[in-house]
Amino acid sequence: MIIIGEKINGTLKRVTSAIAQRDAAFIQELARRQADAGADFIDVHAGTPPETEPDDLVWLATTAERAVSLPVCLDSANPEALLAAMKSVRTAPMINSVNADPHRLKAILPAAAKRGSPVIAMAMDETSIPSTGAERAAVAERIMEATRTAGIPDDRIYFDPLVMTIGSDIRSGPLFLETMRLVRERYPQVHFTAGLSNCSFGLPARSLINRAFLTLAVAAGLDSAICDPLDRKLRAALTAAELVLGRDRYCLNFTQAFRAGKLMTT
Amino acid sequence: MIIIGEKINGTLKRVTSAIAQRDAAFIQELARRQADAGADFIDVHAGTPPETEPDDLVWLATTAERAVSLPVCLDSANPEALLAAMKSVRTAPMINSVNADPHRLKAILPAAAKRGSPVIAMAMDETSIPSTGAERAAVAERIMEATRTAGIPDDRIYFDPLVMTIGSDIRSGPLFLETMRLVRERYPQVHFTAGLSNCSFGLPARSLINRAFLTLAVAAGLDSAICDPLDRKLRAALTAAELVLGRDRYCLNFTQAFRAGKLMTT
Repeated sequence: MIIIGEKINGTLKRVTSAIAQRDAAFIQELARRQADAGADFIDVHAGTPPETEPDDLVWLATTAERAVSLPVCLDSANPEALLAAMKSVRTAPMINSVNADPHRLKAILPAAAKRGSPVIAMAMDETSIPSTGAERAAVAERIMEATRTAGIPDDRIYFDPLVMTIGSDIRSGPLFLETMRLVRERYPQVHFTAGLSNCSFGLPARSLINRAFLTLAVAAGLDSAICDPLDRKLRAALTAAELVLGRDRYCLNFTQAFRAGKLMTT
Repeated sequence: MIIIGEKINGTLKRVTSAIAQRDAAFIQELARRQADAGADFIDVHAGTPPETEPDDLVWLATTAERAVSLPVCLDSANPEALLAAMKSVRTAPMINSVNADPHRLKAILPAAAKRGSPVIAMAMDETSIPSTGAERAAVAERIMEATRTAGIPDDRIYFDPLVMTIGSDIRSGPLFLETMRLVRERYPQVHFTAGLSNCSFGLPARSLINRAFLTLAVAAGLDSAICDPLDRKLRAALTAAELVLGRDRYCLNFTQAFRAGKLMTT
């Protein structure tokens, strides 16, 4: 499972003020804690106004990257910010994200191809998020045509079928799983990722829902998630799911995690 | 989800001595607590020597039944004990269990048909538990031929694909899920059940494994389980799984369980 640590996010007050004050120590501590907990990428999201976002994202990405030996995941809807940050980081960053909007694809894919960046591709276009699995899979086809044309290998694409909160649509979980199944059949090399906690937005007992969603999605082929690597219960649920799915040879990963005190069960 | 409460089990010391001493109060308390926690059937297993088991199971079943307004589930490998207890209880009991052993089927099915009893059918014959899903599904065919001949409707059969401990075979989970898929395709009316905690026998952090197994099995069609109805975390995981699977209209069941303090998440 490829974990994209979500904690450096400008929608969080403490992060917003760390960006404003250029508080590198705070950002680097967040990066380090996620790396220590097993993150594979450190997501950086500035979320500042378009005029300052390129500078802010460059600062955030380079600051986070200096603290850890992991690549960052550049998280922005602003191509200018993504391109500026891509140039300034040490290691090929993950790009979060593109969708089927042709302007966005055209702006980002050539640079991503050149840099060797993995790219998160969301199941939506410039106007909307389709409401059926077949329509989302059709969006995936449009994106994959563009990424292949740009010379990005399929296994560098992280497709996000998109999960909306179950609180506003109880079909959200099945729709996510169906979209993943359809896209997986067509593009077996592609990775799948999810902004996990979206599924439970607005509902109580969110972590319980997130764990159930992760368990079911992992069974259906999810191999990456944008989530909190410090959520020990989520990691424990993932370890147990992989065990039950027969993916943990000799139960070694599970029993080692248990001995290391990583399986919180109470 | 049809919950078969497993706590009145003669392999547990306290239950063994309650049977020996005919301690009705202890047994009835166990029955009541499981009923209050939402069990649909109260499993009763004496596990005493063949000479005394019929008497013991009759006592256990009638004692448990007097305490609650639920049917019992008669749990024995001894047809004589099952038949004696079937006659003495008030409400049609569930039978736990038959397998493809023709003697066993012949001894139990006519009485089960007459009594209107649901029957748990295990994916094994008199000699062994097959090691592939296809072979287990073939066992199911033999059992279903017998139950149909006896006049038991398919929806009164609770098929148990059997889960062995993952600790001795990491394929146990996938094999269970595959067997269920195959039998479900062939017999869409049949229920599916599992002795849930078997999956984690001998492993650490058992309840974590049981929850992952339940979540994945429910997604694949499990609609019943032999388990501890007092395990609040297991119930919470089940409630969350049904929410994520889009089976909880308006999220009502989940939010009501939350308000009732039933979703333990810490």
